[in-house]
Amino acid sequence: MRAWEIRGAFGLDHLTLGERPDPEPGPGQVVVRVRAASLNYRDLLMIQGLYNPKQALPLIPCSDGAGDVVSVGPGVSRVKPGDRVCGAFCQKWVSGTPTREKLRATLGGPLDGTLAEQVLLSEEGVVATPPHLADEEAATLPCAALTAWSALITEGRLAPGETVLVQGTGGVSLFALQFARLAGARVIVTSGSDAKLARAREMGAWEGINYRETPSWGARVKELTGGLGVDHVVEVGGAGTLKQSLAAVRFGGTVSLIGNLAGITTEIALTSIFMQRVKVQGILVGDRESFEAMSRAVAAAALRPAVDRVFPFEQAKAALDLMAQGGHFGKIVVRI
Amino acid sequence: MRAWEIRGAFGLDHLTLGERPDPEPGPGQVVVRVRAASLNYRDLLMIQGLYNPKQALPLIPCSDGAGDVVSVGPGVSRVKPGDRVCGAFCQKWVSGTPTREKLRATLGGPLDGTLAEQVLLSEEGVVATPPHLADEEAATLPCAALTAWSALITEGRLAPGETVLVQGTGGVSLFALQFARLAGARVIVTSGSDAKLARAREMGAWEGINYRETPSWGARVKELTGGLGVDHVVEVGGAGTLKQSLAAVRFGGTVSLIGNLAGITTEIALTSIFMQRVKVQGILVGDRESFEAMSRAVAAAALRPAVDRVFPFEQAKAALDLMAQGGHFGKIVVRI
Amino acid sequence: MRAWEIRGAFGLDHLTLGERPDPEPGPGQVVVRVRAASLNYRDLLMIQGLYNPKQALPLIPCSDGAGDVVSVGPGVSRVKPGDRVCGAFCQKWVSGTPTREKLRATLGGPLDGTLAEQVLLSEEGVVATPPHLADEEAATLPCAALTAWSALITEGRLAPGETVLVQGTGGVSLFALQFARLAGARVIVTSGSDAKLARAREMGAWEGINYRETPSWGARVKELTGGLGVDHVVEVGGAGTLKQSLAAVRFGGTVSLIGNLAGITTEIALTSIFMQRVKVQGILVGDRESFEAMSRAVAAAALRPAVDRVFPFEQAKAALDLMAQGGHFGKIVVRI
Amino acid sequence: MRAWEIRGAFGLDHLTLGERPDPEPGPGQVVVRVRAASLNYRDLLMIQGLYNPKQALPLIPCSDGAGDVVSVGPGVSRVKPGDRVCGAFCQKWVSGTPTREKLRATLGGPLDGTLAEQVLLSEEGVVATPPHLADEEAATLPCAALTAWSALITEGRLAPGETVLVQGTGGVSLFALQFARLAGARVIVTSGSDAKLARAREMGAWEGINYRETPSWGARVKELTGGLGVDHVVEVGGAGTLKQSLAAVRFGGTVSLIGNLAGITTEIALTSIFMQRVKVQGILVGDRESFEAMSRAVAAAALRPAVDRVFPFEQAKAALDLMAQGGHFGKIVVRI
Repeated sequence: MRAWEIRGAFGLDHLTLGERPDPEPGPGQVVVRVRAASLNYRDLLMIQGLYNPKQALPLIPCSDGAGDVVSVGPGVSRVKPGDRVCGAFCQKWVSGTPTREKLRATLGGPLDGTLAEQVLLSEEGVVATPPHLADEEAATLPCAALTAWSALITEGRLAPGETVLVQGTGGVSLFALQFARLAGARVIVTSGSDAKLARAREMGAWEGINYRETPSWGARVKELTGGLGVDHVVEVGGAGTLKQSLAAVRFGGTVSLIGNLAGITTEIALTSIFMQRVKVQGILVGDRESFEAMSRAVAAAALRPAVDRVFPFEQAKAALDLMAQGGHFGKIVVRI
Repeated sequence: MRAWEIRGAFGLDHLTLGERPDPEPGPGQVVVRVRAASLNYRDLLMIQGLYNPKQALPLIPCSDGAGDVVSVGPGVSRVKPGDRVCGAFCQKWVSGTPTREKLRATLGGPLDGTLAEQVLLSEEGVVATPPHLADEEAATLPCAALTAWSALITEGRLAPGETVLVQGTGGVSLFALQFARLAGARVIVTSGSDAKLARAREMGAWEGINYRETPSWGARVKELTGGLGVDHVVEVGGAGTLKQSLAAVRFGGTVSLIGNLAGITTEIALTSIFMQRVKVQGILVGDRESFEAMSRAVAAAALRPAVDRVFPFEQAKAALDLMAQGGHFGKIVVRI
Repeated sequence: MRAWEIRGAFGLDHLTLGERPDPEPGPGQVVVRVRAASLNYRDLLMIQGLYNPKQALPLIPCSDGAGDVVSVGPGVSRVKPGDRVCGAFCQKWVSGTPTREKLRATLGGPLDGTLAEQVLLSEEGVVATPPHLADEEAATLPCAALTAWSALITEGRLAPGETVLVQGTGGVSLFALQFARLAGARVIVTSGSDAKLARAREMGAWEGINYRETPSWGARVKELTGGLGVDHVVEVGGAGTLKQSLAAVRFGGTVSLIGNLAGITTEIALTSIFMQRVKVQGILVGDRESFEAMSRAVAAAALRPAVDRVFPFEQAKAALDLMAQGGHFGKIVVRI
Repeated sequence: MRAWEIRGAFGLDHLTLGERPDPEPGPGQVVVRVRAASLNYRDLLMIQGLYNPKQALPLIPCSDGAGDVVSVGPGVSRVKPGDRVCGAFCQKWVSGTPTREKLRATLGGPLDGTLAEQVLLSEEGVVATPPHLADEEAATLPCAALTAWSALITEGRLAPGETVLVQGTGGVSLFALQFARLAGARVIVTSGSDAKLARAREMGAWEGINYRETPSWGARVKELTGGLGVDHVVEVGGAGTLKQSLAAVRFGGTVSLIGNLAGITTEIALTSIFMQRVKVQGILVGDRESFEAMSRAVAAAALRPAVDRVFPFEQAKAALDLMAQGGHFGKIVVRI
């Protein structure tokens, strides 16, 4: 099969399209013909060696993919060849208490990922594709959608009438917007672009705040919510935005901490957490049963992911360049 | 003030429109000018002496009402004259653990109710009326809407993509339909009338089952859900329907037990509860903070209650007759 | 290997000690040398054909057992030969949402059980034996202990200072007593024998009620708790005791419904459930991660199960006779 | 009445023992004769002007106290003169969702506190004293004990067999130790003193770590727990200890953030929160219903608070000096 590999050393320059032997499924394993992969910021960091410098090479990058089962190993009963499936980022986290073992067996490092014509997965690590979605759309679900779902639904148990703040218009944030709307919540979106805010409003956002014009957007959020603050913040910025998020959240509210886009370490005034009795919930994608619940919801609502652009397999580097530049609205996809 | 009272003995014949001194608010109390009252089946049972034969008389019946504050007693700070409010059924259940004391101080017995021009309430027992609702609409919220909300949202923590079964098209069931839709869930409705099923579909129901044609509707629900069963049943029928509900619910699902319309005692095969690991959750209306959360959601979604018919104050008995006959779709309201 | 089998037809007369080929582990499977099995009432019903008359025969009965791994199949990584393990009753319920598939793959029917020298298990269906326990003690954990744990801890989230009612002094009830004490709760025990109540008090029970002397023990429980009722009832009697349990529980409390010892169907006044806002939680043993959490707690507290009597393998029928007669205190065990 | 007041300006020098008119209870209020007050670090910060420089003066400091009701205002029904009670730190947080209004009406600033012969409280802001406790012991419950209870029980829902880390041997930490033991959990204590670690072990601690000898105590905690980490950290140090706490906690575990003793702002690597899926839960004392549940548990277990030393009323400054120096083990109390 053909596969993109990080070969020899980290760096985009070392990402190479080459040949690999087709994977063979062992007991409890399946091989999936990948039809589309979707990019996450983690993929870029992994390729650059910034995510885990100790990662063994070569590695096929990318965590998200959708396609169909081509073969199954001994003892497999959950799926059969021909089934349309997505791969689960955490191959071993089916459900229950998160553990190191469950949370560290992930695609796109340390395990080979989805930027290849085939991927070897655990029988327990695949989920049926929602029938109304094309593979290019379904490929966006495993990380970005499930992260938003875990934050707002599995952990957040969002209720109708609550208010959610989402930061920017990347993949996780737009899924958070869509799921919050689906759950009957109101959504406030921040962005540096009025054009993107307008698009977010078209997708159902209640209010938008341009953080370039309003750097202290936490205070603006308080105003919009009658002084209360939002029930839930989906924090993707990390160090660069957490202070504003803690100003935006209500007493007793929740900040789902899912990323670091705006910086890794930060000075936090811890008093803003305990004096407001805020919960800061770390989210790491999610378990397979949550994925399945999400897929049911996506199918029932005929929800469609926001795909910014689809690249052909051979132009995967151009797709990664777009990710690196930013500026996209929703997910970047590679057709394979 | 004018008030309908159960005087001397129970029975519709003893329900009399008469004069009462205007109530005066003591410390922590408020007087509300009732503009509309809404009927619940409990009101009929109370008047007939079937709900609590030991209830002291005279009693002003009815639990649900909306209007505006006319006066407040010493120490009151939550509301002021002129505020539009609804009364809370459980006057003392603000939040937290339910107790006998919190759950037994209820309007329309043992406390005087809302079928009067004025009602005396605790400062803690009123909730701001959603601004977009007329009083005739808001009067339907305190019992029927809050019961549905408590079952599906406060306790049920309904998630998008889940499936809910509601029985019939009475007040609680239609609110359950609306809230389930608002929360992104699918709804199956049972009814004895195809016309009502059609109306329920217009309100967003996914499927309808005519229980006259399909008496074993539990099995039909399993079919519709691919053999799984529904996540949540809002059980209003009680003894007469619980067996089918336990056939309709999924393994690990929830039956919210909120009423007895179809009978009080029943033979239950308890194995159907524990062999399927079902939770049967008794619901008794709800607490004030849940009411406030519900009102926020109702306001945010501009949701409008299904009002079947509005009667003038003088024709309250005709309204109760309609309740007794059944056949209504949604709530019956009395304008005061 | 030697095994007791229900052969040809149901009934204790058809329970026969014979020879079977040693099981061979397939992919993801392990074979365990059973050192001790423990009896549950379900085993007796199964042998008599009362539990599931459609069960295919021959069947090796019994759900609970402890021993050591003798061989493992391809792909097995969780355990290795020599490890001391207990079998999980629900072989496929590792964690997460209960489903029919997870809850129906159970030992002692439909799957062959533990009353044999060896048993074939899923790699995912074994749990490490707490080191301080002999196999005769550990064999009591999979059903009786886990049922009590699921009711009070996994689902009940018992808090210190709460009060629990347990019925009788069978296996589940004594584990419930021990776990409730471990969690800082007070326990009221009912029994028909003052001698057994005395033994329960020695194990930490706060109060005992002889139901022969006090048939309306629900009212007595209310007295003992200052009129409030208990927070949690572990209901093993089912139809014959539920009415008293609903009289014993506090407003907003929980009844864990786990058995039917005193009858299968009953007339319930549903009002006692919803007017008191009680939750009736069906419990079916539990998932493997709960088992593991329980084993950690059992080990940390060096808790020892109450074993009534240990029979040699050849006298398994005598053990079942004792189960049928009742009168035991805690668990009946068969050494293999 | 006599009262200690911060007069004119902040600073221990401005803390003055003087006369005040006896408080008079308004509607819904009660006056309590304070028999003992207990110190928290917040009291010292408040007196020094470091907690809230905008606090209006004069102010009677101290949040914690126990005594008996001397008079009640109109409409009061929860207590009567002569009742032994403790005051609730958050006078308005009876139960339910925390809000700014509920969490900011606190004793010892902005409201007058307990370092006086009498204190004016809300009827809703008192809790019955556990009968087995002297007032000097009961005075320690409102802040320190309730904070530990809220962290581990109300929010943490600690289960038997779990492991808790507590930092040092101050009031909150020793209550956390006692409550964790009561709930069947194991406790690891850190301290800079081997003598204190020995005393903590006598109170039931499983392991102790001297952070002077083992500054990277997070790694040592991992070792002690077989590489897993603890389920729950009660974080009182704040900025100075959070990094080690995040090294000590298990994947999916909880850090209850309740204080800042070791610093207010800190650089946190946010990845350690979301890559381990940790929850950081801000805790601000707790609500009255949790206080009542805690008092039931304290009474049922006859648990006694660890009181380091009791000072007479006139020597309140000496008590505050001891607090400032540190080195105490458990709570410092002032008899009034």
